[in-house]
Amino acid sequence: MKKNLGATNALYPMPIVVVGTEVNGKANYNAIAHVGIIDHKTLSISMGKIHYSNQGIKEHKTLSINITAEDMVEEMDHVGKVSGAKEDKSQIFNSVYGELKGAPMIENAPVSMECEVIDIYDQPEFDVFIVKVVNTYADEAVLTDGKIDFAKVKPVLFDMPKFGYWKLGPRAERK
Amino acid sequence: MKKNLGATNALYPMPIVVVGTEVNGKANYNAIAHVGIIDHKTLSISMGKIHYSNQGIKEHKTLSINITAEDMVEEMDHVGKVSGAKEDKSQIFNSVYGELKGAPMIENAPVSMECEVIDIYDQPEFDVFIVKVVNTYADEAVLTDGKIDFAKVKPVLFDMPKFGYWKLGPRAERK
Repeated sequence: MKKNLGATNALYPMPIVVVGTEVNGKANYNAIAHVGIIDHKTLSISMGKIHYSNQGIKEHKTLSINITAEDMVEEMDHVGKVSGAKEDKSQIFNSVYGELKGAPMIENAPVSMECEVIDIYDQPEFDVFIVKVVNTYADEAVLTDGKIDFAKVKPVLFDMPKFGYWKLGPRAERK
Repeated sequence: MKKNLGATNALYPMPIVVVGTEVNGKANYNAIAHVGIIDHKTLSISMGKIHYSNQGIKEHKTLSINITAEDMVEEMDHVGKVSGAKEDKSQIFNSVYGELKGAPMIENAPVSMECEVIDIYDQPEFDVFIVKVVNTYADEAVLTDGKIDFAKVKPVLFDMPKFGYWKLGPRAERK
C-alpha cells in the first residue's frame, strides 16, 4: 500500500562530499550532499546562497570535491554544521594544492577532485555550481587495477529524511 | 601516496533510479545514475541525447523517478542496457499513474516520485532534465515514523569506475 507524502525529495542516499574553497585567503571546507552528475566530467554542487564558501568559489572560479571516508565522518559533520563566517575551518584538515588556485584539497581524503566552475545554474536560494573535473587524485591504497575501488574508499552517504550518514554495503549482484 | 588519474569523475556511488516515461503511447523505463539534487524539491536527470526516453519526456514534460530496491536489480539492469527503440519495455514493470500524464510509475518500487520538467540544461551530448517533484509515493512498509527509512527501502547504488551495483550498508555514526 502506497502513501502520498506530497512533494518530498526521495533521491537519497547521496554521497556527501567535503567541498574545499579559499575564502579571504584561507582554506575553507563545507559538507555538501546536494550534488549531481551532469555528464562524464561535469558535476553539480548546489550550495545555499547563505553559505560562506560561495563567495570564494565565485572569486576563484574553482573548488575541490573530496570524497568523505568513514574515518573522516566527525570532521565532515563538523564543517557541515559550522559556518566559515563564525569559525576558521582552515586547520580542520591538512590542505594540499594541485594545479588550481583557490581549490585546497584534503590531504587524507581517499579521493579528491580539483574542479573549474564553468557555470552557475542560478536558483532563488541556491547557487548550483556546474564544474568540470580537471584532475582527480586517489590514494593508491583505494585503487584496484588502477581504478577507484569504492569498497576500499569506504565512502559516506547521506539521507535527508532521517538526516543521517550511511556506510556503503556489499555489491548488489544480479540474480 | 596519491596518484593523479586525470579528469576522472569520482562522484560515486550514486543512487541508480529507474526513470519512467511514455513514448509513442507506451510506458518506457530506463536506468539512470547521472542524477542530482538542485534544491529541496528540484532534481536533475541527465540522459544521453541518443536515448529513446528523451523524446517522450520532451513531449509530455513529465517523468517519474523510481528508487531501485535490491530485489529489482535484474529488471533495472535490463531496462538500462536495452533501448526502447529496440524492445518494448512497457511490460517489464507493472505501471501505475498518479496525477501526471506521461509519467508511469513502477507499482512495486518502494518509492516513486512523479515530476514535472521545468527546464532542460542543454549539454552537447546530454539532455539534463531539471524536474520539480510533484508527488512522492512510498510503500508504507518502508516508512518509520512517517518518513522514508532507507534501511527498509534497500536502495541500489552504482559506480562507474568498477561499473557495478552496491547495497546500502549500516549507519555511519560519529565517533
